[in-house]
Amino acid sequence: MIIILRSNSSDEDISSVEAKIRDMGLEPHVSKGIQRTVIGAIGDESKIDKEILEALPCVENVVRVMKPYKIVSRDSHDGDTVIDVGGVPIGGNRVQVIAGPCSVETADQMNQAADAVAAAGCRLMRGGAFKPRSSPYTFQGVGVEGLEMFQNAARKHNLPIVTELMDVRMLDTFLEHKVDVIQIGTRNMQNFDLLKEVGKVQTPVILKRGMSATVSEWLMAAEYIAAAGNHNIIFCERGVRSFETAYRNMLDVTAIPVLKRETHLPVIIDPSHAGGKAWMVPSLSRAAIAAGADGLLIEVHPRPAEAWCDADQALSPDQLNTLMGELRGIAQVIGRDL
Amino acid sequence: MIIILRSNSSDEDISSVEAKIRDMGLEPHVSKGIQRTVIGAIGDESKIDKEILEALPCVENVVRVMKPYKIVSRDSHDGDTVIDVGGVPIGGNRVQVIAGPCSVETADQMNQAADAVAAAGCRLMRGGAFKPRSSPYTFQGVGVEGLEMFQNAARKHNLPIVTELMDVRMLDTFLEHKVDVIQIGTRNMQNFDLLKEVGKVQTPVILKRGMSATVSEWLMAAEYIAAAGNHNIIFCERGVRSFETAYRNMLDVTAIPVLKRETHLPVIIDPSHAGGKAWMVPSLSRAAIAAGADGLLIEVHPRPAEAWCDADQALSPDQLNTLMGELRGIAQVIGRDL
Amino acid sequence: MIIILRSNSSDEDISSVEAKIRDMGLEPHVSKGIQRTVIGAIGDESKIDKEILEALPCVENVVRVMKPYKIVSRDSHDGDTVIDVGGVPIGGNRVQVIAGPCSVETADQMNQAADAVAAAGCRLMRGGAFKPRSSPYTFQGVGVEGLEMFQNAARKHNLPIVTELMDVRMLDTFLEHKVDVIQIGTRNMQNFDLLKEVGKVQTPVILKRGMSATVSEWLMAAEYIAAAGNHNIIFCERGVRSFETAYRNMLDVTAIPVLKRETHLPVIIDPSHAGGKAWMVPSLSRAAIAAGADGLLIEVHPRPAEAWCDADQALSPDQLNTLMGELRGIAQVIGRDL
Amino acid sequence: MIIILRSNSSDEDISSVEAKIRDMGLEPHVSKGIQRTVIGAIGDESKIDKEILEALPCVENVVRVMKPYKIVSRDSHDGDTVIDVGGVPIGGNRVQVIAGPCSVETADQMNQAADAVAAAGCRLMRGGAFKPRSSPYTFQGVGVEGLEMFQNAARKHNLPIVTELMDVRMLDTFLEHKVDVIQIGTRNMQNFDLLKEVGKVQTPVILKRGMSATVSEWLMAAEYIAAAGNHNIIFCERGVRSFETAYRNMLDVTAIPVLKRETHLPVIIDPSHAGGKAWMVPSLSRAAIAAGADGLLIEVHPRPAEAWCDADQALSPDQLNTLMGELRGIAQVIGRDL
Repeated sequence: MIIILRSNSSDEDISSVEAKIRDMGLEPHVSKGIQRTVIGAIGDESKIDKEILEALPCVENVVRVMKPYKIVSRDSHDGDTVIDVGGVPIGGNRVQVIAGPCSVETADQMNQAADAVAAAGCRLMRGGAFKPRSSPYTFQGVGVEGLEMFQNAARKHNLPIVTELMDVRMLDTFLEHKVDVIQIGTRNMQNFDLLKEVGKVQTPVILKRGMSATVSEWLMAAEYIAAAGNHNIIFCERGVRSFETAYRNMLDVTAIPVLKRETHLPVIIDPSHAGGKAWMVPSLSRAAIAAGADGLLIEVHPRPAEAWCDADQALSPDQLNTLMGELRGIAQVIGRDL
Repeated sequence: MIIILRSNSSDEDISSVEAKIRDMGLEPHVSKGIQRTVIGAIGDESKIDKEILEALPCVENVVRVMKPYKIVSRDSHDGDTVIDVGGVPIGGNRVQVIAGPCSVETADQMNQAADAVAAAGCRLMRGGAFKPRSSPYTFQGVGVEGLEMFQNAARKHNLPIVTELMDVRMLDTFLEHKVDVIQIGTRNMQNFDLLKEVGKVQTPVILKRGMSATVSEWLMAAEYIAAAGNHNIIFCERGVRSFETAYRNMLDVTAIPVLKRETHLPVIIDPSHAGGKAWMVPSLSRAAIAAGADGLLIEVHPRPAEAWCDADQALSPDQLNTLMGELRGIAQVIGRDL
Repeated sequence: MIIILRSNSSDEDISSVEAKIRDMGLEPHVSKGIQRTVIGAIGDESKIDKEILEALPCVENVVRVMKPYKIVSRDSHDGDTVIDVGGVPIGGNRVQVIAGPCSVETADQMNQAADAVAAAGCRLMRGGAFKPRSSPYTFQGVGVEGLEMFQNAARKHNLPIVTELMDVRMLDTFLEHKVDVIQIGTRNMQNFDLLKEVGKVQTPVILKRGMSATVSEWLMAAEYIAAAGNHNIIFCERGVRSFETAYRNMLDVTAIPVLKRETHLPVIIDPSHAGGKAWMVPSLSRAAIAAGADGLLIEVHPRPAEAWCDADQALSPDQLNTLMGELRGIAQVIGRDL
Repeated sequence: MIIILRSNSSDEDISSVEAKIRDMGLEPHVSKGIQRTVIGAIGDESKIDKEILEALPCVENVVRVMKPYKIVSRDSHDGDTVIDVGGVPIGGNRVQVIAGPCSVETADQMNQAADAVAAAGCRLMRGGAFKPRSSPYTFQGVGVEGLEMFQNAARKHNLPIVTELMDVRMLDTFLEHKVDVIQIGTRNMQNFDLLKEVGKVQTPVILKRGMSATVSEWLMAAEYIAAAGNHNIIFCERGVRSFETAYRNMLDVTAIPVLKRETHLPVIIDPSHAGGKAWMVPSLSRAAIAAGADGLLIEVHPRPAEAWCDADQALSPDQLNTLMGELRGIAQVIGRDL
């Protein structure tokens, strides 16, 4: 940790900072510049709150030298981690497209969706039985029986299923219904109790980025899961909040190369929730794969206009097919398979 | 609801939108302009997803005419709601300053803090037993026994207590320990299962604004609590995420007049988490009261530099005293008491 | 224009709004709903300030029905406009990569840069003689003689040149030096006097997006140029300001499909200023072309580490070569040439 | 400057960074930690681009130790600078309210406005003859003759005038018309040529904050003016761009204490452009003064509903009067005059 002192700091000030650093179990290393004194604090800074140093009136700024995340950091694991989901690899050379409807509606709808997803060549399926809705008065998901409909439809095509867990009390139900991948939604990225609980199982977790989470906060949220014991984590960028009103969220495509540099874990993109309109999805999907994402989480519905939620953002089966062809081409250009 | 069609829409397009509107139980009302056709949908739009209409290819834009929130809306209740917390009113003419340490540490610390809070003239006390920390490796709060230390210290001065609930499974424990006000933190503003549960009890709830929640989303989060039965809700603005790096969060002072116009419920401000530095707190506190806030949630610690978390943002008892004097003066100027 | 009244509006209120609408030369069309009255204002709304209606105390909200931009709107021109720059087309099926150093330094540097740009297969060259720097104490560009060095180097390879105009008083000098494309930088996107002046010539203009400009404001800035007479406008997205600190700007890849739908003019991307680091440029460049951009504006320097400004974001000639190969592959997948 | 190396850096890497630092005229000072090596660069870092060091592949991060701004920094001048505008002090103990219409319309309107401004006890007047409008099709200001109408009206009450300069070519005209304070608008905060020109005169300058400028960029923009020779600079916060759509801009009240700590120059607030609605102005004005601002720039119009631009944000003369009373009370509470 590096502590930059205010310009008029006295020798006494310097001594007080040195003492505080020693209290914290680190070793101070003073270096006086022309205008300012800078103190290095050498040792393990990972368990240290830098606020304690920032609280000293003579301190201008405190800069961490080490990353606050460890298990998820590329420093801890040089290669790319591949996560096995019922035989389907996520991460590594193969790009995976996880498709399905926003929400589980009926057995028929799920069967048709599963047929379309498999026919397009996707190897995993998504669908929500519990829906985080901004209004308490709109459709909240069909609930537990939705998990059954989902499994019945997906198993016919050997598609592992991805579904969102919102309430920590439902985790056992998810395990009983053999959910293959647990999705943690954007609104729960820093629901730390939920993170700790999914950290205690080994089911792979897709961790969506919080609405306005920095990459660093997102890595720390993953570190919560990892620190509790579950290292099967997949990052999913889904657009962040911005000043722009021409579309719903701003897809942060730059997060792809940045995350690939910072972590060894797979990174996927949700182009459907990012733009919020079906007509934007092909562009955003192609951009994500071209930028180096390990996969996509994409909405498709047998009859989009009749979807019970987010009707304007689902692709039709035909549109998914066309898109898969383009994505295959792009993957190939950058030396990957799909 | 108003549906604006794309410029080249045909009569068939118009008919299809009219049919969809009737399907939803509303009545269409077409009006052809020079360049565009606009269709009004008359009826109760509160349970309707506008995405279903936006999914139609001929639709350019859909605008709601009614507010999506009801119980919390000023339309439903003209006067200002005053919430009674163990005899202390929140809302109404009296401004309330809720003070206390960021986290409960020891019985001694809480006793000294309670003495300082009461001596400064504050009538409620805050303190965290469970702490939402961005790193899994830092202090996470002292837990349940913290609630006891807190109650013991606060009861000596008849100070009702405010503390944060993060995990839905802890609600019963909070009720057993007679927590007077449940705080829902910024990271849980859209933890809908938690909102529904605190909606089932009658304990007043302080609902902090999500890191980048719009005022409308915030009102809808409160509507979740209200719709479940608990109307004792206090909004708390605590700074939002922005591009600025000179301080932690940007205190949204404009949210005060906007919320006071939209809702009948009380609105308070947390100046400590907003700026993130003790030296900014007096300015922000005065601004909040001057703008019309009903109170403050403020950090004070017997010895700020020794605080176990957020050491750089707590006021000392002396600083709190001085600030209370200024706030009293400002309250008076705008015709309120403190 | 649609005017939504507040819920308690009287008949008198309605009449006052109707009168105001007629004053403005439009025709009112009242429609009373269950909770609110909505008034349509039919006629040419393009010259009307909606603030005048919003100022009426009974008005809740005013929504425009027509787009505020005209000449640049796709409504005014259905196909894709192709801009001819000295025989090189921008827009249309061919993707163009405009490469070159951030700033003109010396004749040697420019000659080597031009060799590299041409060798990589790029057909236009960029370089700055006047640099907008956030500090008055850092290198401000070599000035007018830089335009000469630039032209000498570029002409050898028949590369049209792109360079930034910051000061309206330099426009004549730019014309004398036969600058092929005038770049308006992000800080000048709403320098309206500069926009009006470049609107009076026919030199193509690259209009960079303002640091936090909405797509609509950006289109309106282009409309300033177009309304003054110059329709040769190329939009350039270069990353916008966000809360993220892991990189410089957030590349708004969603702006590509959105702009392509709203305007008939070409859209290019500057991946170098977006991320701010050379190692991010290949990912962002591929994403941009995959999303449907008409080209790139990219920094390349003969010896990046010795660049006089933005040394950390320029590609080396070798890196440019490799990238061009990937971009060619992606362009082909989506049916375009490069 | 402090240079943090990547975790796997070799001795050769370290030597290369040391060499580069010496090249730049600074002295390196290496300190090897447990996981990373940190190098201090001691000397005058103000003219150094940190990008040159960031470009080295072994460098993780570079942190400045000194502030990039000098003349405007509080380090260069300990007390508060008071700027004299025709005998009216800005900065210091007295709070100044600068009021007037958004735009100059007619001689009558300006006379009535000046009467109202003086009657309310304000000592300076604002008004725009040249208006930066987002659409080329709306009212652009009455131009030069507006300066005359403005002066004629203001001189009757000895009110110094504040008006916006958009085009560098109009500076002489402003000087001829004896404009007392030149306003640089938000869209021109980084129009560096304009900053350099107003830096060459001694007329006081109100520098509005860019739409999404950081406090540091804003201070650097002021440094441009100061470095050119004009030290009479007044900062004006006017709301920044955010994700919120419930009002126009987010007033950054935290910028007040932050700026007062960083610079010795006066800081004022424009509450009218911040919120964008007249009914928000009293709250925001009171907040600004309570937070420690040195003044306000506020819109008032003899008949707001008839204003030619921004009709919804101007106060009436009566509303201004009431507000001035409240502001006087608040100023007194914090030991200031108004």
